[in-house]
This record gives sequence, C-alpha cells and structure tokens, in this order.
Amino acid sequence: MKRIVILGSTGSIGQQTLDIVRAFPDEFEVVGLAAGHNVELLAEQVKEFNPKHVCCIKPPAKAFSGPGFTPEFTPMEDMVCLDNVDQVMVALMGSVGLVPTLNALKCGKSVALSNKEPIVMAGGLIKEYASRYGGEVLPVDSEPSAIWQCLRGEDNEILRLLITASGGPFRTTPIEEMEGVTPERALQHPTWKMGKKITIDSATLMNKAFEVIETHWLFNVPWDRIEVVVHPQSTIHSMVEFADGSVKAQMGPPDMRLPIQYALFYPKRLPNAMIPRLDTKKSHSLTFEPLEPARYPCFGLAVSAAKKGGTYPAVLSAADEVAVQAFLDCKIGFTEIPRVIDRVLSEHESLPGDTAEDFLEADRWASGRTAELIGG
Amino acid sequence: MKRIVILGSTGSIGQQTLDIVRAFPDEFEVVGLAAGHNVELLAEQVKEFNPKHVCCIKPPAKAFSGPGFTPEFTPMEDMVCLDNVDQVMVALMGSVGLVPTLNALKCGKSVALSNKEPIVMAGGLIKEYASRYGGEVLPVDSEPSAIWQCLRGEDNEILRLLITASGGPFRTTPIEEMEGVTPERALQHPTWKMGKKITIDSATLMNKAFEVIETHWLFNVPWDRIEVVVHPQSTIHSMVEFADGSVKAQMGPPDMRLPIQYALFYPKRLPNAMIPRLDTKKSHSLTFEPLEPARYPCFGLAVSAAKKGGTYPAVLSAADEVAVQAFLDCKIGFTEIPRVIDRVLSEHESLPGDTAEDFLEADRWASGRTAELIGG
Repeated sequence: MKRIVILGSTGSIGQQTLDIVRAFPDEFEVVGLAAGHNVELLAEQVKEFNPKHVCCIKPPAKAFSGPGFTPEFTPMEDMVCLDNVDQVMVALMGSVGLVPTLNALKCGKSVALSNKEPIVMAGGLIKEYASRYGGEVLPVDSEPSAIWQCLRGEDNEILRLLITASGGPFRTTPIEEMEGVTPERALQHPTWKMGKKITIDSATLMNKAFEVIETHWLFNVPWDRIEVVVHPQSTIHSMVEFADGSVKAQMGPPDMRLPIQYALFYPKRLPNAMIPRLDTKKSHSLTFEPLEPARYPCFGLAVSAAKKGGTYPAVLSAADEVAVQAFLDCKIGFTEIPRVIDRVLSEHESLPGDTAEDFLEADRWASGRTAELIGG
Repeated sequence: MKRIVILGSTGSIGQQTLDIVRAFPDEFEVVGLAAGHNVELLAEQVKEFNPKHVCCIKPPAKAFSGPGFTPEFTPMEDMVCLDNVDQVMVALMGSVGLVPTLNALKCGKSVALSNKEPIVMAGGLIKEYASRYGGEVLPVDSEPSAIWQCLRGEDNEILRLLITASGGPFRTTPIEEMEGVTPERALQHPTWKMGKKITIDSATLMNKAFEVIETHWLFNVPWDRIEVVVHPQSTIHSMVEFADGSVKAQMGPPDMRLPIQYALFYPKRLPNAMIPRLDTKKSHSLTFEPLEPARYPCFGLAVSAAKKGGTYPAVLSAADEVAVQAFLDCKIGFTEIPRVIDRVLSEHESLPGDTAEDFLEADRWASGRTAELIGG
C-alpha cells in the first residue's frame, strides 16, 4: 500500500488523482490532503478518504471530520515530511509549490510533480535536492510523462526531445486579430480540459515553454536538443529521438488520468477502465507542423529567460501568473501578456539562485512589479 | 569487435548489413558470407571484407580471394556454428533459412532474423531451440523491430501489438480492378524499396500476416492481441498498447538500415549519418485506417493457417512463394494468388511439426502441389 499526500486535492489534477485512488482502493492510503479555498470540496474528500492530516488556506470554523475521527491540521511543509508518507503529489498552482516540493525531497520522498512553477523557477535546486537527499521527482504532466515513458529502458544518447503542442485555440487565427481576443475565446482549448491559468498558458504557448524547461531539468537534456512540434490532435504526447535516429513516441487520447496513474504506480502499468483507449476502428489523421515563433512570443522569451538561469525563470513564472490573471480580469489584452513579462524580465537583476529564498524573493518582486506595471 | 556471418549477403538486406559494417569498420569482423546466384557481387564483397568462410549455391570455377588469402568454402549450416562467430544475420529468401537458423540457435548464437519464412514455418520450434540452447532471435524487419524497441524496459502486460501496414499499391484501387493488375503495377510499392517477392507480398498483405505470425512468436503475444492498422506513410513502424492504455510507437523515415543496425548493436544505439532522420521542419500528416479484409484475402487466410499450427504455416509460406513467382511470370493473375494458396492449404494434412524435417517435408509437398495446380 502506497501512503500518499496530495497537495492541491481540490484542483483538476488533485481530483483526478483521487479518481485513481478511488479506482484502486487497496493500493493507497491517503495520509494527507491540502487545498486552497475550496473548503466545501475538501470537506467531502476528507469524509471519503479519511486522511489523518489536512491543510487549507483558511481553516473553517468547524473542523473537518471523517466518519470515525477528526484529522489534524498540519501545514503542507510538515505534511510532506511525515514518516508514514511514501509519495507526495504536488498539484498546487504557482510558486506556493516550491517549498513543499523542496521539503519533500529533503526528506527523501518520491515527488509526483504536476505543479510546473517550482521546477520552472528552481529546476537546478530541485534536481540538486533530489540527488543530495535521495528523493526523486516524477513528472505528471502529459508531455514530460510521455518523454519519461519513451526513455524507459534506454540509456542511449538523446538527439532530440520532440515535445508536441496542440497550438492552442489561436493556431490558425490571423496574427493581426490576436490583439482583440477575449478571455472567453482564449479559454476554448481545442483538445485538453484544464484550469484557467494553464489554458491561457496553452494559448500563448507559455505552458509549452514551461514543459521545455521542465524536461531540460528532469531529463538533463541540453536546451538545443529540445524542440517543439505543433500537433493539433494532441494524440502523440511527445517523442524522443535517439542517437541512431530512431524516434519513440507515446500516445493515447488526451486524458490526464493516464500520466497521473503512471507516476503513482511506476514502474507498474495497471488496467483502469476509466482511461480511454486509442480507437483503431475508425480512420484518423495526425498532423505535424513547425512552430511559428511570431504567433507565440511568450514561448521564445520564456526559453531565453530559462537559458539565462539565476532567478530569471522565477521572474518569468511570477510575471506570467500576474499577467494571465490580469488578462482573465480584462485588465490587459492578450498580446500584452508577453510585453508585460518581457518588461519585468528586462528590469530584473538576478540573484544567485542557490537557495529557495532567492527564488521566492524574485517571485515576490516580479509579482509586485508586474501588478504595478499593469495597474499604472 | 563483433564477429558476424551474413547469410544472403548479396540480397537487399545483406547489402544493407554490409553498409552498416562499412560504417563501423572497428566494430565488426566478417567471418563468413553466403549468397545464392549473384557470384559476381559476392566476389566483390569477399575482396572488400576478407571473410575466412564463403558459401554460394554454385561454386564458381575460380575460387574467391581476398587481398592476402583465399576463403574456405563452408556450407551455411556449418558456417553459423563456427566457434569464432558471435552473431548470424539470416537474410536469405524462403525456407532455405530454416536449417541454418536452427543450427545457429543450437550452437547458442545470436540470430538476427530478416528472413521471415523460417519463423512463419516453424516459429514454435525456433523459440524452443532459442530457449533450450541459450541462443536468441532478434528481429530485423522494420515492424517487429519497432515492437521490440517499444517493449524495451517494459515488463508490463501487453494489451495490443498494433502493426502498421502501408496498404501497398492497391489500397485505394477499386476491388473489381484487382483481378487485372499486372506485376509491373504490383511492384510499385508506395513507401519501401524491397525485393520482388516481398513487394508482391506487401501488395497482397501476405507480408503483413507474416509479421503478425513473427511477432506472435517473438514476443509471445496471443493472436487476438495482434492488430494491423493501415498507415500509408510508413512513418510509424508499429506500436504497442500496454495494460494502462498507454501506446508507444517507434517511428522514422522508411529505411531498413535502422532496424538492421539496431539488431547488430543492441542494446546500444550509435549515430550513423547514412540513416535518414525524421524531418520536423516541414508539415506532414500521418493517417490511420482500419484494414479492409475483402481487399486483402491473403491476410485472413494466412493468419487462420498460423492459428491452426502444425505444418499449415509451412504450407502457407511455400504455396505463397510459388504462387507469387507464378504471378511475376504472368502465369496466374493477382487475385488467383490467394485462391491457389487456399486450395493447397485445404488439401494439406498436417504433420506434428516437432522437427525441422516435418516443416521441410510440408514445404516440399506444398511447393510441388502449388506448381502442379498452377501448371494444370
């Protein structure tokens, strides 16, 4: 039985993680659940899964309770280090995932990392913690999971990681119309159902840049060997090209429960009827096209920031978070997102980036500065 | 340094195997070369690669010679068992590959098997020899190699092997026109350049049935978990679906040197500039459609014969060889190929199939009977 903690249990990935737990009741013990503001859903989850530990941003007046007991309120940072925890699913949003991730690694835990921001902000530090303290970081996101699956059993040189991108809702929109797109249109993702922030990041391809950064750190592949290929059907989740030119791809209908389950059970693969299967009884077409840099300015600036290193990626991530929220709140236009982020990055003076505090400080500075620029 | 013997060195796969040897001169010693009637090319190969042993169907009057020595004439059956041989590439055509394959396995050698007929005829016996005497059978053909690559590092349950088929030159030809197709048209394979026999087998999909049979034996997968998917671009060479619904695919431009090199260097993958790489700089489309059984009657009758077991698959293979040659010689029409094979299969009384001799006897009987039916 695997004893798990789920940080962000009321979000999309948190709920789907609990779907997997529900499908394999004998395989998991849920030791802890942590959520943000959705106290009502967290209370239901506590009733169903009886965690010994619970955490939320604002503790409600009345304590949560399971059928036979009352869980302890335990901060996330402590919950991930409990002795009786084998694996931590980090499915939070934003920089709040960084400290729990580092803590879990410091305690030698296996971390299933869905939350991209910690590894975008501080990829080097996370990898250093994992190797120093004997923990591990497993990808949960569909594309890095595909690469992880393709690399299974291969210790051969990697020529290229080929990360697929649906291209989002504006893949074929005339570029001159992009300035006027509304949040409603930007939230219509063609293939994946996700939270609002990541859906906008998919429309700008910022999310794809985050995956480039994530795979760079997770699989130790140089920047110039990571390529993005636009693949509108999102059936091939990513590919790896090896030294001999052979390309392996991982594919399936777009559904996050497969990569979530893969991270929870790795190296085992278990049948689960709720995961949809590739339909070979009907004809279908998979298309591939090169990325158009002019259509997706966020992509290029994000990868440049990541290559610069230091605390630039933390600034990138924080500025993006604030800018996307401002777009969703109709305070800025869609094409202003990259402009604001670029401005904040250009004003930043990098800190060394050898402690979590450096990244959090850069994060705070960038959030404040982005808000200021948008407000002013 | 790997010491290899190449049986069928003047054929398409034999020559491409020597391309790989030529590209990595420090990695191989060519101990023996065997060919059929192309004595001239064999003589050139002997000059270039200096094998100690040589074999051809009709020994020429003048012995072959390398720059400093004269190779010994050694029958294939003995050549594969020499102490100083590590791996045998069996790239022969037809049932002639069976005895050398079994001999090599009996001597505990690694056999890279390009020649499909031995494993189609006697898959059970080949697997038994490999496990009893400690040899191994490695696939060379593109589709089984793709499956082998996808299975690397996976010891999880296989839900389906998805073997891709280009569909050949008659994928969209009106079925009523199939009766009149000429050998010239049938030899126009849309994606692969191969020998004549295998090109016709690709037009009838007999070749795809042979791959189903080969993968059944090589990877120990039940018949009902092997499916053929028509994929005209031949970019995805095959796929595996695992217990959790995850599908892995192996892909690349159609070029046999990749799977040949993979079998020669496994588990290493080495860079080789002669192997073309997947071009991601231009747009492309990969399409998939279900197999139309009515268009490809050879496919269904071949898989049925394989499922019946005994010496039926040997009869299938021999009848196909004679029928295809008769079609190439304009003695029978394209649509008569399956009819003749079906008739021969229906007349056959299976032998137990526990010795090579059973299969060879069935092979001889079926060749004679097919020729008789065509002649009469």
